[in-house]
Amino acid sequence: MMDGLKEQLAFVNGVLTEEDHFRHAISLINFDMETICPREGMSEEGELLSFLDSKAFALRRDPAFVEAAEALYEGRDELEERDRVLAESLHREYVRTKNISAEENLRFSRIMNQAYVDWIAAKEKSDFSLFAPSLSAVRDVEMTRLSRLDTPSKEAYDDLLSLYERGMTVEKLDEIFGAVRERLVPMLKKIMASPKKIRRDFASRKVDDLSQQKMAEYLLDVIGFDKSRGVLSTTEHPFTESPAKDDTRVTTHYYPDMVLSNIYSIVHEGGHALFDMNQPRENWEKHITGEKTMGQHESVSRFYENRIGRSEAFISLIYPKMKEIFPELMHDVSERELYEVVNLVEPSLIRTEADEFTYTFHIMIRYEIEKMIVRGEAKIEDLPKIWNDKYEEYLGVRPERDAEGILQDVHWTSGFGYFPTYALGNFYNAMYFNRMAEELDIEDLIRKGNISAINDWMREHVWKKADLLSPAEWIKDITGRDLTPDDFLDYLEAKYSALYELS
Amino acid sequence: MMDGLKEQLAFVNGVLTEEDHFRHAISLINFDMETICPREGMSEEGELLSFLDSKAFALRRDPAFVEAAEALYEGRDELEERDRVLAESLHREYVRTKNISAEENLRFSRIMNQAYVDWIAAKEKSDFSLFAPSLSAVRDVEMTRLSRLDTPSKEAYDDLLSLYERGMTVEKLDEIFGAVRERLVPMLKKIMASPKKIRRDFASRKVDDLSQQKMAEYLLDVIGFDKSRGVLSTTEHPFTESPAKDDTRVTTHYYPDMVLSNIYSIVHEGGHALFDMNQPRENWEKHITGEKTMGQHESVSRFYENRIGRSEAFISLIYPKMKEIFPELMHDVSERELYEVVNLVEPSLIRTEADEFTYTFHIMIRYEIEKMIVRGEAKIEDLPKIWNDKYEEYLGVRPERDAEGILQDVHWTSGFGYFPTYALGNFYNAMYFNRMAEELDIEDLIRKGNISAINDWMREHVWKKADLLSPAEWIKDITGRDLTPDDFLDYLEAKYSALYELS
Repeated sequence: MMDGLKEQLAFVNGVLTEEDHFRHAISLINFDMETICPREGMSEEGELLSFLDSKAFALRRDPAFVEAAEALYEGRDELEERDRVLAESLHREYVRTKNISAEENLRFSRIMNQAYVDWIAAKEKSDFSLFAPSLSAVRDVEMTRLSRLDTPSKEAYDDLLSLYERGMTVEKLDEIFGAVRERLVPMLKKIMASPKKIRRDFASRKVDDLSQQKMAEYLLDVIGFDKSRGVLSTTEHPFTESPAKDDTRVTTHYYPDMVLSNIYSIVHEGGHALFDMNQPRENWEKHITGEKTMGQHESVSRFYENRIGRSEAFISLIYPKMKEIFPELMHDVSERELYEVVNLVEPSLIRTEADEFTYTFHIMIRYEIEKMIVRGEAKIEDLPKIWNDKYEEYLGVRPERDAEGILQDVHWTSGFGYFPTYALGNFYNAMYFNRMAEELDIEDLIRKGNISAINDWMREHVWKKADLLSPAEWIKDITGRDLTPDDFLDYLEAKYSALYELS
Repeated sequence: MMDGLKEQLAFVNGVLTEEDHFRHAISLINFDMETICPREGMSEEGELLSFLDSKAFALRRDPAFVEAAEALYEGRDELEERDRVLAESLHREYVRTKNISAEENLRFSRIMNQAYVDWIAAKEKSDFSLFAPSLSAVRDVEMTRLSRLDTPSKEAYDDLLSLYERGMTVEKLDEIFGAVRERLVPMLKKIMASPKKIRRDFASRKVDDLSQQKMAEYLLDVIGFDKSRGVLSTTEHPFTESPAKDDTRVTTHYYPDMVLSNIYSIVHEGGHALFDMNQPRENWEKHITGEKTMGQHESVSRFYENRIGRSEAFISLIYPKMKEIFPELMHDVSERELYEVVNLVEPSLIRTEADEFTYTFHIMIRYEIEKMIVRGEAKIEDLPKIWNDKYEEYLGVRPERDAEGILQDVHWTSGFGYFPTYALGNFYNAMYFNRMAEELDIEDLIRKGNISAINDWMREHVWKKADLLSPAEWIKDITGRDLTPDDFLDYLEAKYSALYELS
């Protein structure tokens, strides 16, 4: 490496270390806001977050930083792998934002903030028309941003998808979701027609918070969450936050009559946490822990939630503990009945409550509608009807109110392209589950509670290179194959044919 | 006001608003560290606090800021009251620190940090000799700091006392503590000789965390803590933190066999919280909320803890609720027995567990020893013996181990002069209690649970001007009299003579 490049690298790393401090603070304060901040303190805490964010933002906008970062990108072939990954990431961000002024950026973020406020009000009144103008404005922001790219894609939606899942395109997603539709639509019909009855009365029996907390702590131990480097807290909407390399926080919620909601929230967020806790420590020092995509992250959380958490082996593992912690709920429930209820298929209106089987339909519907919005193929005011029609077509249910239809998700207040990552996660993890199964007796390990052997495999194959490779390179590196939904569809078919006794 | 002064004021306020953001972040992160941060995440969170602190510190050290602040001080007579208070405060800080370089300041703070580390180790091993070198070094830092003042006081300890309680001197404290000694020493002897038996068996009965939390929430409601602008959390060492004007946090601890510890922690910290929550909002905008002294703050927390919380009227108020929340603990306990046990006098070794009557002795001992240290009248290695002798003399108990003697408090890891404020709080609140009693039937208000009427009086008389006046001016403004321990001593004499049936 030339001396000049070395100096540029040191300079860039110095600035990013300072930025990391601000990001660390922002992450902690975000967590505070979501978990404990008193109601009246929130607006000032929001201002504080903006202040810190502007400090962090200014560091990257400094011309000296931009110049050094671009020089690194020019000389990237001389850099060691992690430095090269950083240089490429900084360049991508530069290209994406260089033609947008700070004032314009501020205007965009005000539009998004207003969209959030309008969405809250519209959802409360269940009236899409209150959100429609803001949704239009958000679309305009996205389009303006894309128009500022030096070389925009022909398919505008591709540039949005790539923001969350590097390299993803409409062409690939159309192919993937086409295959999904072809196999899942007829199968859902069969499941719905099956005479199989799944017992569910016990799932809504009341349990107290303290027992639920005990269960959550137990599950974190079971999956290998390191409590010296992480904590559990509660929020309305569970999430995972990793403020620093030895600080990963998961949250859950305790509803007295929804004990399973807590259990699968914890296993899901615990999966995100394991990913963060087990990334190479060097990635923190090299400022590349943010390179992993949403799809990669979601693949891991859903791996723990569904592939482990909803397996017969896992139910067998936690069944005795559940009887111990929830004696009144569990006294007349068999292991099989527990397994069946956590895998109950039931088409429903709300994405976040969907079961493993129907979940992908919720994503496909959003994908199809986002594509129409971005391409300008639908009028904003027609969207509720389009939404409802698609729910009826795919899932056989029709929202009666916007609040339980098109207004249910917050995501469109900040743009388009995020939703598909939720489905991609399932496709990725089905592929690496099959690869893992070539080396490990997964079911046996789960049954014996030896999740750490699974975590070891994940660390070596899935987690280690997630920040270094694009998702396409990464899944090929793990499995030797290109992304396909087939593994996921095969898995669903086998599992749910057995459960619903389909012929 | 001249235009120049207006500009200086606007400039200073702009910088302090930026500093406030950093202080807000620091406060939230401090709270996070004390309440939820995982063990392994603490060191990085500590580094983050240093980073943010250095950002805040740099703002005040900027020559342009210093110049503007000093100009304000020069023209202070033209400023409105709050701006003048700010100008005087900035000037005091400038005078205190102007001859100390940033490097020297860093060296000082490293010595204090090392003292903290050594103190932890020494306390764990109960071996004062492990802390002695650091204590010496802390003394040297204090002496160096004082030597840098342009006009140091003749009595060095005065300058240290003034840091925590503006205007306090050895001369005044000697007089005050002399009066205290004269009246409390013989009275403690009488109490100890009293045949009165106070029942205490029930106080250590086991109660669960959930019930204790319920009790804590109830007590916060009773005293008027605004839960839309504050929250409750748990820590080992209870404290109050007010990160922002609508965000005040109290913490407590739940020990299964020490229910009273939780109750009086909550009422004490709740008192601090009421003070913060009820300060004039304008003081936040004018950057003077930090002007109130430790003695003023402690007077309020002890007012709620002792003058309200340990009164017969308050016990009568909360007795039914305690029976409801802790039925097993309370089933055979009378209201009178509860009142007596919360006022049990028992000389003991540990300050933080001391009762209301003996508490002042713990402070006097520390005051006398600090004075000797600062004046150089005692060798550091002789301090444990001096400490133990004084405990025997005042309280009739003698520590057998340094950990329960001279090593019990953290305060000396960061200097001298803080302890007296704990005692001053009691003298202040006894004086304003008597003033309040001229206008309100305090006992009747407490008995009826009408604490808000008391809070209203406190807001108008005690809280409103705390940031604007020196403690001496403030107590005179409230009561028309100069600081005296007489009101406090009269109160103790009356209360404990009755309780212990002294003749």
